[in-house]
Amino acid sequence: MSGKSDVNEPPTALVTLEIDGPVARVTLNRPRERNALSRALLDQLHAALETCAADPQLRVIILGGNGPAFSAGHDLREIRSAAPEFVDDLFASCARVMLELQEIPQPVIARVHGVATAAGCQLVAACDLAVASEAASFATPGINIGFFCSTPAVPIVRSVGRKRAMEMLLTGTPIDAHTASAWGLVNRVVPAGELDAAIQLLVDTIVASSASTIALGKRAFYRQLGRDEREAYGIASAAMCENAATTDAREGIAAFLEKRRPVWPAR
Amino acid sequence: MSGKSDVNEPPTALVTLEIDGPVARVTLNRPRERNALSRALLDQLHAALETCAADPQLRVIILGGNGPAFSAGHDLREIRSAAPEFVDDLFASCARVMLELQEIPQPVIARVHGVATAAGCQLVAACDLAVASEAASFATPGINIGFFCSTPAVPIVRSVGRKRAMEMLLTGTPIDAHTASAWGLVNRVVPAGELDAAIQLLVDTIVASSASTIALGKRAFYRQLGRDEREAYGIASAAMCENAATTDAREGIAAFLEKRRPVWPAR
Amino acid sequence: MSGKSDVNEPPTALVTLEIDGPVARVTLNRPRERNALSRALLDQLHAALETCAADPQLRVIILGGNGPAFSAGHDLREIRSAAPEFVDDLFASCARVMLELQEIPQPVIARVHGVATAAGCQLVAACDLAVASEAASFATPGINIGFFCSTPAVPIVRSVGRKRAMEMLLTGTPIDAHTASAWGLVNRVVPAGELDAAIQLLVDTIVASSASTIALGKRAFYRQLGRDEREAYGIASAAMCENAATTDAREGIAAFLEKRRPVWPAR
Repeated sequence: MSGKSDVNEPPTALVTLEIDGPVARVTLNRPRERNALSRALLDQLHAALETCAADPQLRVIILGGNGPAFSAGHDLREIRSAAPEFVDDLFASCARVMLELQEIPQPVIARVHGVATAAGCQLVAACDLAVASEAASFATPGINIGFFCSTPAVPIVRSVGRKRAMEMLLTGTPIDAHTASAWGLVNRVVPAGELDAAIQLLVDTIVASSASTIALGKRAFYRQLGRDEREAYGIASAAMCENAATTDAREGIAAFLEKRRPVWPAR
Repeated sequence: MSGKSDVNEPPTALVTLEIDGPVARVTLNRPRERNALSRALLDQLHAALETCAADPQLRVIILGGNGPAFSAGHDLREIRSAAPEFVDDLFASCARVMLELQEIPQPVIARVHGVATAAGCQLVAACDLAVASEAASFATPGINIGFFCSTPAVPIVRSVGRKRAMEMLLTGTPIDAHTASAWGLVNRVVPAGELDAAIQLLVDTIVASSASTIALGKRAFYRQLGRDEREAYGIASAAMCENAATTDAREGIAAFLEKRRPVWPAR
Repeated sequence: MSGKSDVNEPPTALVTLEIDGPVARVTLNRPRERNALSRALLDQLHAALETCAADPQLRVIILGGNGPAFSAGHDLREIRSAAPEFVDDLFASCARVMLELQEIPQPVIARVHGVATAAGCQLVAACDLAVASEAASFATPGINIGFFCSTPAVPIVRSVGRKRAMEMLLTGTPIDAHTASAWGLVNRVVPAGELDAAIQLLVDTIVASSASTIALGKRAFYRQLGRDEREAYGIASAAMCENAATTDAREGIAAFLEKRRPVWPAR
């Protein structure tokens, strides 16, 4: 949550999208407002993710934040003065972006260099992977201002479990990066100076693999989550059959059996 | 599970309810029977939770047990001699109490000072938060007496995961408090002498926050659990919108933006 | 995944079933192919599990693998040359076996002495319990060959959580046995020389308990998983009532109250 406003900031600057070959860097860019997720920022984040989703050359997205914080969550100044219709729309937009992170074909890695609170912590939980600096911390402090972090709770409890989620939600107390890693909220924690190198290792691995395979697998993964196990197998088995028939799987299996490196066809 | 009976004990003593300002202490009070959850005790626990739920001054509930044990689960002497209708009714009552812990507006903290087995372990898993003494232990030993802990399994597997729940259920072997903490069954473990102080820290934090916000947030939290993520966001987003319109959130956000402490309106 | 074929191997040898009193050892037996789960092997595994399920004397199943690996997953040579109908059928057969592990009345313990990858890792996740040697490792490396481990993901994400499952799936990188234990994919990890002794301890405990109770409890456990908690309590409470009426529970409760060891009736 952030209390500073950015009315004078040009709208195009709230989220930046830098594309470097197969890697997109999507960066929250309201550093003075600790990257508060205003309605305008969420719209730009949505637009950036749509652009990435539509680009067949893009293989992986790194979601980070400019300035000292990763993201402090919603923009309280905006909510404070808003009509109920605006608030409805704001939370619908926010949920849309969170689900979009799962729906786009590329893996999204949260680059958490600093504070991730409220909807900022939700953003970390909603990404496919997350790497945290030792300087990062995580909290759902809405309770301190009478505004329970109900939407952040959705992906957070699905990452860290009930008792731990409830403690974060009821106390608002931050957890450090090592705790976040132990609880499964982030994949790993590294010294601040090694954050980009740790992410690069994941990026290199993902970029070396087949784009169509990741797209197909990621889609099936999120579709089968939260289903009864028999239903989940129906979804996942259909994905395996679809996958087996792809050019990429045929090449990958052939390469493996022929003890050579696979050459993925261009998309 | 406990095998001693308490036919001579007055019914009003099975659960005590002490109210101290915003804090309710609900205490299982069949110490000689290791707080076995007889039908009569469950009825009194239900009544105590109903009383708490209806009291707008109450902010937090500490659920503990008198005597050496937290709770040894169901009352085997009672089940042994019971007609099937009684047993049906007993387990319906027990499930009702467990779900009630989630439904009441106040957070419930399990104070686990000793053994929590079978439905006693279920009770710990069903509370919002749990603090354990190093002297506590946790088990689902029904398997040892031909009576699988199927209902305890419901909240336990949702806390500790499948393999760990299955090991507890199939072997009946107790886990110590540190293991329970590592597995997410309790929030923290402290030396026996620091149990109340550790709970007091949680109580102080909860009491300082807005009652209506916690009630609204807790309700949404349990409603969205176990749902598909998109459905969960529908429930949680509706809660955020309702929350944003409350007097408490307006005051909390204003206080935050004005860099002052919020003053929650009386309920 | 394995690339070697075994066309000359007699079909009856792909899975061995050894029965020693109440203990069945089901062993994947394509050591040169790292126990790749060919369609023929899955059929034999299905047949072995059906045989076990129908045998009232059998109390516990140990699922292991011959040769250096536990199992390297599907048989890529078979998939490579297969018609789509064969692949459909293969994944349907595989899901059937995985669900069968949950449906049979006896507990199944995975004995993981070596590499468990792709559907081999899925097999570990699908068993009730798993004990790993320190020499074991676990991976979902399908991504390396353009063939995302979508079906292995089903029980793996339900064991280790989202971020960790996604990292395994997107990178294909193995985790060691200690990590698997910390993440809840296996129950414990022991030095290679102590693997059978560690399993024997679990076997002894299970064999000493009531067969009908375990059958009833295991069935209820998997039925209530993945349900809404209220629905789960309905399933589990019905199981408790059914259980309370059994001869074994009556004997177990009586023995407990009379401070003697229970004598389970023959099935």
